[in-house]
Amino acid sequence: MNYTGKKVLVTGGLGFIGSNLACRLAEAGAKVVVLDSSVQGCGANRRNLAGYDIPVIDDDIGNAARHAERLRGLEAVFNMAGEISHINSMRDPLRDLELNTTAQLRFLLALRAMQPGVRVVYASTRQVYGVPQFLPITESHPVNPIDFNGVHKNAAASYHRLLNASGDVDATILRLTNVYGPRMALNIPEQGVLGHFFRRALNGEPIEIFGHGEQQRDPVYIDDVVDACLLCASRHRLPHANLNVGGPEALPLAEIAGALAAAGGCEIRFRDFPEGHKSIDIGSYSTDSSRIAATIGWKPVTLFPAGVAKTLEYYREHRSHYLPS
Amino acid sequence: MNYTGKKVLVTGGLGFIGSNLACRLAEAGAKVVVLDSSVQGCGANRRNLAGYDIPVIDDDIGNAARHAERLRGLEAVFNMAGEISHINSMRDPLRDLELNTTAQLRFLLALRAMQPGVRVVYASTRQVYGVPQFLPITESHPVNPIDFNGVHKNAAASYHRLLNASGDVDATILRLTNVYGPRMALNIPEQGVLGHFFRRALNGEPIEIFGHGEQQRDPVYIDDVVDACLLCASRHRLPHANLNVGGPEALPLAEIAGALAAAGGCEIRFRDFPEGHKSIDIGSYSTDSSRIAATIGWKPVTLFPAGVAKTLEYYREHRSHYLPS
Repeated sequence: MNYTGKKVLVTGGLGFIGSNLACRLAEAGAKVVVLDSSVQGCGANRRNLAGYDIPVIDDDIGNAARHAERLRGLEAVFNMAGEISHINSMRDPLRDLELNTTAQLRFLLALRAMQPGVRVVYASTRQVYGVPQFLPITESHPVNPIDFNGVHKNAAASYHRLLNASGDVDATILRLTNVYGPRMALNIPEQGVLGHFFRRALNGEPIEIFGHGEQQRDPVYIDDVVDACLLCASRHRLPHANLNVGGPEALPLAEIAGALAAAGGCEIRFRDFPEGHKSIDIGSYSTDSSRIAATIGWKPVTLFPAGVAKTLEYYREHRSHYLPS
Repeated sequence: MNYTGKKVLVTGGLGFIGSNLACRLAEAGAKVVVLDSSVQGCGANRRNLAGYDIPVIDDDIGNAARHAERLRGLEAVFNMAGEISHINSMRDPLRDLELNTTAQLRFLLALRAMQPGVRVVYASTRQVYGVPQFLPITESHPVNPIDFNGVHKNAAASYHRLLNASGDVDATILRLTNVYGPRMALNIPEQGVLGHFFRRALNGEPIEIFGHGEQQRDPVYIDDVVDACLLCASRHRLPHANLNVGGPEALPLAEIAGALAAAGGCEIRFRDFPEGHKSIDIGSYSTDSSRIAATIGWKPVTLFPAGVAKTLEYYREHRSHYLPS
C-alpha cells in the first residue's frame, strides 16, 4: 500500500512496536491515529512519538466505540496494544485477562460495528506455542500456552481468527518472536529478557542469565517487524490467518548476552532461575518464517550485531528518556 | 472414592450435568454443596434437585471467595458451571466471556487461595476442537474452536491446565461430547440439538434437522457422564490433564432424530441452516475415548435407544417442570 494520505489506527501506539509503526507510517505520509491508555507496566512512553505530529487518543482500546467519530474511515488498523509480561500475568491473571482478552474483544466488536471488513494486523506472540515440540516452529505447531499471558493472547488471536472467518474484519495475526530495538522499554524487568540485557549493557552492569544460557532465541529487529506489519496491511484477505515472524537466526542466550556485554563493556553472570520463572520457561525457540515469506515476501534482513549497534546508538542518544538516573 | 460423608462442591449444580451429579453424590452419602446463580438461559432449574436435601449457594462462581466458610474442607470440586450455547456466544460474545472465562478464572483463583491442591473435575467440551481434522477425535487433535463459546471454554480449560501444572489445583478436564438425559433444559433452543429433538418428540411436533442430517454425533447418556466425573474425582494427579468423554457410537443426526420421532410419534423435516448457524457447524464428530478408558477404566455403557427411553420416561413423569404449557 502507498500509505500517503491514508488514515490508519495504531493501538498501543505509545509502546515499543506500536510507536515504531506509528512513526514509520507518519514518515510515509499516513494520517496516523494512536489509541493508547498508557497502562502502567506495558511500556507506553510519550517520548516514543517525540518529533512526530501524531494525535493520541488517551483511552483503553476497549472503549474504542466512544471515539467512533475520530476513527471514521480507517484504511488499516495495527492492533499492537497489550501487556506482554508473562511473569506479571502469573502474579495477576485477572489484570492480564482484562488487558489482553476482554479489552481486545470489546475493541474488535467496536471495529466490526464502526467499519465492517476493515483490515487489521494483530501482534500475537510465539508464546501461544508453549514449550516447542519441534524446532523451528511452524504455524501448524500445536497451540499450548504455559502461562496466563499466553492463554489470554491466544484468546485474543482467536477473536481475530473468528471475525476474519466471518468477514467481520480482514485480520492477519502475526506471531512475533522476541523483538528488540529502539523505543523498547528498558526499565520494566517484566517485559522480557532483551530489554533487561540492553539496560545492563547501557549501564555497564553485569548481564544476568537464568540457567545455563544454552536456550536459543531468534531476536528480530524492530524495523523488520514494522516492515512485516506494513506489508501485511497492504494486502487483503491473505490465505492464512496466522503468520510467524521470526529473526534471521537462532542464537544461544549466552551468545546474545555476550554480544551485548562486549558492546557495553560489562560481564555476564549465570544464575539459577528465580522463583516463578522456571515454570514458565519454554527452553529453546526458533521460528520457521517460510509461510510469511511465501505469502507476502517478507524476510528479516537485520542481523543481530547490526541491530544491536543501531539499538545502542538510539539509547545512547535518548538515554534520559528511557533510563532516568 | 467412597463419597460417604465427604464434602463436595458442584458448580452449576442446578443445571443439567451438575444436578445429576449432585443428586448422585447425595445418594452416595456425600455432603453436597451447590454453587449456582441461575444465569438466565444456562439451564438452571430448581426442580432438578427436587427430593434431595442439597444446600444451594445462590451466587456466581466468580464470587466463591465470599463463601469461604461454607466451602471449607472440600474433598472434590465438580466444576460444571457455564453457558454452553454456541449461538448465544455469537450473539453476545462479552456475556459468554464473562460467564465462561472471567468467572472461571475468579473461581479457580479463589479455590487456590482457599484450598490449594484441591481435586477439580472440569466440564470442557468437544467444541474446543473446532472442525475435526480426523475422526474419531483423540486428545491430541489440534484445538481450534470456531465460535466464541469454544474460545472461552478453551481459555477456562487452559486455566485448569496451568493451575494443575503448578500444583495449585489437581484438575482433570473432561472434553464432553453431546450429553443427553433427564434434567436437561428442553425449553432453551440455544442449548443444543438434542434438547430440541427431545422437546419436539415430547410435544409430538416435527423434528427439524438443519442440512442433510448425515453429520454424525456420538451422544452420551448423562449417567455415563456422571460415572466418568465420579471416577475421575476419586483419583489424584492423573497422568493426563485432558480426557475425552464420548458416547458408545456415532450416529447420523437423521438417525438420532429418527429414533426420537419414532418414540414421539412425530415426523422429521429437513431444512436449510438458518442464518448464523452454518458458520459454526462443525460437520461430523465422533470421540475416541480410549484415553479415559486406559486412565480410569471408564466406558460409556448406555446405548442410545436405552438412553432415549429413560429420558422420555423422566420427562413424561415430570413434564410440567420442563415443558410448562
